[in-house]
Amino acid sequence: MAEVHTERRERLRARCAAAGIDAALVTRPVNVRWLTGADAVQALLLTRDGVVLAPAEGVHPEQGAAADQPEGVELLRAAPGADAAALLAARCRGAVLGFEAHDLTVLRHHAVAAATGARLTDLEGAVERLRAVKDEDEIAQLRIAAEIGDQALGELLESILVGRTERHLAMELERRMVDHGADGAAYPVRVGSGDHSGRAGHRATDRRVEDGDFVTVALGACYRGYRTSATRTFVVGLAPADWQVELHRQVFEAQRAARESLVAGAAPDSAELAARRVLDAAGLLGEVTGQGIGLEIAEAPRLGLQELGKLDNRVPVTVAVGVHLPGRGGVRIEDTLVVRPSEDGGPELLTITTKELLAL
Amino acid sequence: MAEVHTERRERLRARCAAAGIDAALVTRPVNVRWLTGADAVQALLLTRDGVVLAPAEGVHPEQGAAADQPEGVELLRAAPGADAAALLAARCRGAVLGFEAHDLTVLRHHAVAAATGARLTDLEGAVERLRAVKDEDEIAQLRIAAEIGDQALGELLESILVGRTERHLAMELERRMVDHGADGAAYPVRVGSGDHSGRAGHRATDRRVEDGDFVTVALGACYRGYRTSATRTFVVGLAPADWQVELHRQVFEAQRAARESLVAGAAPDSAELAARRVLDAAGLLGEVTGQGIGLEIAEAPRLGLQELGKLDNRVPVTVAVGVHLPGRGGVRIEDTLVVRPSEDGGPELLTITTKELLAL
Repeated sequence: MAEVHTERRERLRARCAAAGIDAALVTRPVNVRWLTGADAVQALLLTRDGVVLAPAEGVHPEQGAAADQPEGVELLRAAPGADAAALLAARCRGAVLGFEAHDLTVLRHHAVAAATGARLTDLEGAVERLRAVKDEDEIAQLRIAAEIGDQALGELLESILVGRTERHLAMELERRMVDHGADGAAYPVRVGSGDHSGRAGHRATDRRVEDGDFVTVALGACYRGYRTSATRTFVVGLAPADWQVELHRQVFEAQRAARESLVAGAAPDSAELAARRVLDAAGLLGEVTGQGIGLEIAEAPRLGLQELGKLDNRVPVTVAVGVHLPGRGGVRIEDTLVVRPSEDGGPELLTITTKELLAL
Repeated sequence: MAEVHTERRERLRARCAAAGIDAALVTRPVNVRWLTGADAVQALLLTRDGVVLAPAEGVHPEQGAAADQPEGVELLRAAPGADAAALLAARCRGAVLGFEAHDLTVLRHHAVAAATGARLTDLEGAVERLRAVKDEDEIAQLRIAAEIGDQALGELLESILVGRTERHLAMELERRMVDHGADGAAYPVRVGSGDHSGRAGHRATDRRVEDGDFVTVALGACYRGYRTSATRTFVVGLAPADWQVELHRQVFEAQRAARESLVAGAAPDSAELAARRVLDAAGLLGEVTGQGIGLEIAEAPRLGLQELGKLDNRVPVTVAVGVHLPGRGGVRIEDTLVVRPSEDGGPELLTITTKELLAL
């Protein structure tokens, strides 16, 4: 557990103190990881002056969790099968115990309530909000994750695509990302060809890539827990059709406008508004999506039209624009970038692989 | 949605009626899938005379969920972002609404409680208990899943292993399972070589396989949602050492004893007791584990020493025995089999790939 995790816990402690919360019981795995840096911890209790960690089942308390255990960090010794959250709650000495109502199930909440004399109150996503702004170490991991995805995609594009199934191409990309040092894929790689191209969330099928197809690939690597995502659309064959060139250009322009809007201080709806202006002018109906990315592929903040507030510096986000023409296919382009102040040159693009319309 | 799902819902309805529950709100994804056969449903409300399905976000109600929608099945039309569980709860006309306290978070439970006039009561794992006994269609899927895992392992063993990393071997096995028709791996394939062999839950590392190593491979395919698991241990090199031959024989005997005990009507602790007798006689400390398997790699029933009751016919289970000698490695052997009555020949082995000590 490095200093950075001590500092993160300090920030959570300050938030809790400001909200009148004496101790925080954190159970959501991704939040536990962010606060401890350890995979092998299943829950933690953050008190005013220390922290108690519950090792994951099957992990010996001596192992993994905290070989370089700093002062104030205590390990819970729990019998297998016991609910760690309840055991931690029993250690709360304060009057008000914060918990994660969006993670703890009703069953576990019962056990927690029975184990503590403290009043339980929802932390209301406090850890997720702290996680939105990344430190430079986290951004460095994201840069590596993005580079791995770029490499895997670049290699695939040098091979023959015609005749291979979407599923095969997806598997190969996942393997290549691992070969380049990824923990794994950030999410199942999506490959959509022909009529499947240009859609968000399309799952790879046994359809074989044909000459003249649009092919949309969405992929991202997970590197030391940090995930990125990029989507690109190509044409298979020597010469793209005119409609393909035109559609690709329009989606590219819309996504570029969205991307460039993402400077520190911008409103969360700026990306969607910018993309819609381009799509509307072209008379296209499209899908514009965006959100934070880091330990999760979709985390705070959201970039939709209903969102309030302002974008902070050092917030990594994805921004995607897709247009699908039923029966023909479509184009989707997505990047991961980091919100930066305009005086520093604006958003930092992490997924730098080309967005040109390649004919393969 | 086929007849089999209607029949499963009928069984849940009968359980609820017997417990004085008027309607059941099912939110746990694997339970929803078992009751509907659909991937694209996120929750369902089972009433006395019908069922309301909430399509997953991003799925148009007309799509997927129920093209061949039988009578009494209704689709909820929800605005994106709305909590489907709360919308379903609002449709409950009865006085007592059962919900899944081990799945629903405190936050969603609040929304559900606010949306319904019914009294909420825990279903207490009713769906999981129904799922433990499989129908012959489910067992047929498990047979295919097991065969895919066997094929992938058989192919790998024909290739050169020395010098390759555990991680590479694991990836190759996952790819081969997909090539043979799996949806994917049932869980990340585990490969442990040398000192890593013989351990449950070892994650593949960058260690390269060396001549003379024990290599333990744990793998399973997922086929149409159904998962199996098998673990085998091999020696790399022409001639296994005497201690390797002996340890393998002892673990094999212990696992065979465990396996053969799993007849319908047996106590859930019979497998562990049988394996421990063999291990104790050999003076070995080992790990014996077992549990139900199906849509999940670990589901009801558990086969531990504290479990009560009797094993039912048509319950697929895994049974594993492992012995690890620190600094040297070890042997782990695991199978997936189906509990059958002894008059029908006893347990049906699904993972039929050889358990002999192969020297590769």
